[in-house]
Amino acid sequence: MKTITVPLPGREYEILIRWGLLKEAGSCCRRVLPKCRRALLVSDSNVAPLYGPEAEKSLQEAGFETRLHVIPAGERSKNAEELLCIWNEAMDFGLTRTDAVIALGGGVVGDLAGFAAATILRGIPFVQIPTTLLAQVDSSVGGKVAIDLSAGKNLVGAFWQPRLVLMDPAVLTTLPDETFSDGMAEVIKYGCIRDRNFFRRLEGAGDRNGIMEEIEEVLAHCCRIKAEVVLEDELDTGLRMILNFGHTLGHAYEKAYHYETYTHGQAVAAGMVLAARLGQRLGLTEQGTEEAISALCARFGLPTAIECSIEDYTAAIGLDKKGSGSEITVIFLKTLGETLPTKMPKRELLELL
Amino acid sequence: MKTITVPLPGREYEILIRWGLLKEAGSCCRRVLPKCRRALLVSDSNVAPLYGPEAEKSLQEAGFETRLHVIPAGERSKNAEELLCIWNEAMDFGLTRTDAVIALGGGVVGDLAGFAAATILRGIPFVQIPTTLLAQVDSSVGGKVAIDLSAGKNLVGAFWQPRLVLMDPAVLTTLPDETFSDGMAEVIKYGCIRDRNFFRRLEGAGDRNGIMEEIEEVLAHCCRIKAEVVLEDELDTGLRMILNFGHTLGHAYEKAYHYETYTHGQAVAAGMVLAARLGQRLGLTEQGTEEAISALCARFGLPTAIECSIEDYTAAIGLDKKGSGSEITVIFLKTLGETLPTKMPKRELLELL
Repeated sequence: MKTITVPLPGREYEILIRWGLLKEAGSCCRRVLPKCRRALLVSDSNVAPLYGPEAEKSLQEAGFETRLHVIPAGERSKNAEELLCIWNEAMDFGLTRTDAVIALGGGVVGDLAGFAAATILRGIPFVQIPTTLLAQVDSSVGGKVAIDLSAGKNLVGAFWQPRLVLMDPAVLTTLPDETFSDGMAEVIKYGCIRDRNFFRRLEGAGDRNGIMEEIEEVLAHCCRIKAEVVLEDELDTGLRMILNFGHTLGHAYEKAYHYETYTHGQAVAAGMVLAARLGQRLGLTEQGTEEAISALCARFGLPTAIECSIEDYTAAIGLDKKGSGSEITVIFLKTLGETLPTKMPKRELLELL
Repeated sequence: MKTITVPLPGREYEILIRWGLLKEAGSCCRRVLPKCRRALLVSDSNVAPLYGPEAEKSLQEAGFETRLHVIPAGERSKNAEELLCIWNEAMDFGLTRTDAVIALGGGVVGDLAGFAAATILRGIPFVQIPTTLLAQVDSSVGGKVAIDLSAGKNLVGAFWQPRLVLMDPAVLTTLPDETFSDGMAEVIKYGCIRDRNFFRRLEGAGDRNGIMEEIEEVLAHCCRIKAEVVLEDELDTGLRMILNFGHTLGHAYEKAYHYETYTHGQAVAAGMVLAARLGQRLGLTEQGTEEAISALCARFGLPTAIECSIEDYTAAIGLDKKGSGSEITVIFLKTLGETLPTKMPKRELLELL
């Protein structure tokens, strides 16, 4: 078992990673939730049929009374209506302040269930069991939970740390290739922003099968990096922004195609490649960086460029809205493994594009 | 000006109390919110016409761009639908993480707007301008914000401390007598639980006019007591429960009459009188306490007894629900000004009733 401790003062928790761990979800949860009687398991219509029964069985064997709440799969479920359904279900189930909400699914389930946990009875214990690569390396670490509004993504939410994060890499085997690659973009990002050796190791693994051979170590390494960054900046006021490498441009792509044509990972991959190219052009980034990122992304079937109009870029960096400020901090790389956050006028960034 | 500092570590804030302070809301807010550009003012259909223009004018003069969001007056507005409206309005108005939500109204407005502030962009600054006596002495101090669900009151929410609480006692002059008395029940409660001299002082004041003559000191004293208690127990795990004196039985009355016949304060008044009587019967409470509380409540037109069936009591203490535990902590008084929280089997409490 790989164990990563996230030592937040007063709210320390562990990330446990092991093949087959889902079967032990109950005993793992029991250790951190000794007083919990009821566990509301939130999952989606893709994941619940595959892993819901196993998770429920394990939790019941550890003495939890369980109820499974299933939301429709997809980003559209991360909304206020589904949140209200979970709130009502929690009350109907009789959750008290020592009971728990457990998220079994990808980022949408984690964000939605986490926000529910943060607010039910003004906050009750929360456990994450992320089932996509993206959720395992990204959204399940950091304590950011949220829902979308019609005006945009993640506009309301909270900072709410889980009591435990359980990762069973075996659940990744049922992911479609595209969804696996979606997570690989974030895995590659960790190499780019903090660890050149890790980047080289991913190049060595080469493809999905190669990654799966060392998946526990890959997950652990990504979580360690994210936990380090989050720890230094829990409330997202500074350092955490290096996690946004590739994301400013990525958001432009996601938005331009209405979050439909490209997944988050695909957009981030193209965003990282372009950020490296711009950095090289400005003399901030070591030559060859773009090529290395582009080649690695391509190995996992990720796009290395996405077409986007200047209007879409303008909207994505908020230059069309008064009051959002005229400057933007762009995360460039100095070299693979090292960032160079750079404040620049939004107009200048647009001209570069 | 009376100033009470609530010295929460890292989130210290002040409660400012002065006749006519509403006119200075802008400059007071500006001091604690130097970077705030936009202020979303949330109020209700009773308060907005009376005090909205004055508050907006003052805020605008201090350089805030303002928008007034008005909810229908009444407890029914403290729901998920109104919360979603505020979330959407905040986005439409373009609030950023340094902007603020300002609650101008009673407890419903404060709880709803506070929960919105706690969740918009994962939490933005919040200012309370309570306009009822009840909100001034109770819900505006303590950081508990919430909305109701169909299953019950305050079931989802957060702990979210304001940056500032502004109290202008002049706004109390437009309250109907019943609403003023509603707050007096909580004022009397502070005397009961922490300060016999304050209780005597209220007896001396005698009626609404008498209270208004020393209103700044009365408000300040109540807030000081509540702040002391809350400080020792910010997350509501122990001491804070003494604030519930009269509330367990009070909730039974509110619930039995579907929150319609009796206000919160009326129910609490009858609850305090009965708690004192039970305490005296058990030999826990000094003889004469019931009579003193009953007489003082009656002076303010508050009921000193409310009829309630044993079924309603049973439901209110949760004895009808499995899993809510078989014991309850009842806040008895030892004497005026001193509490005696007592754990007892719920059955025993019911037999007493």
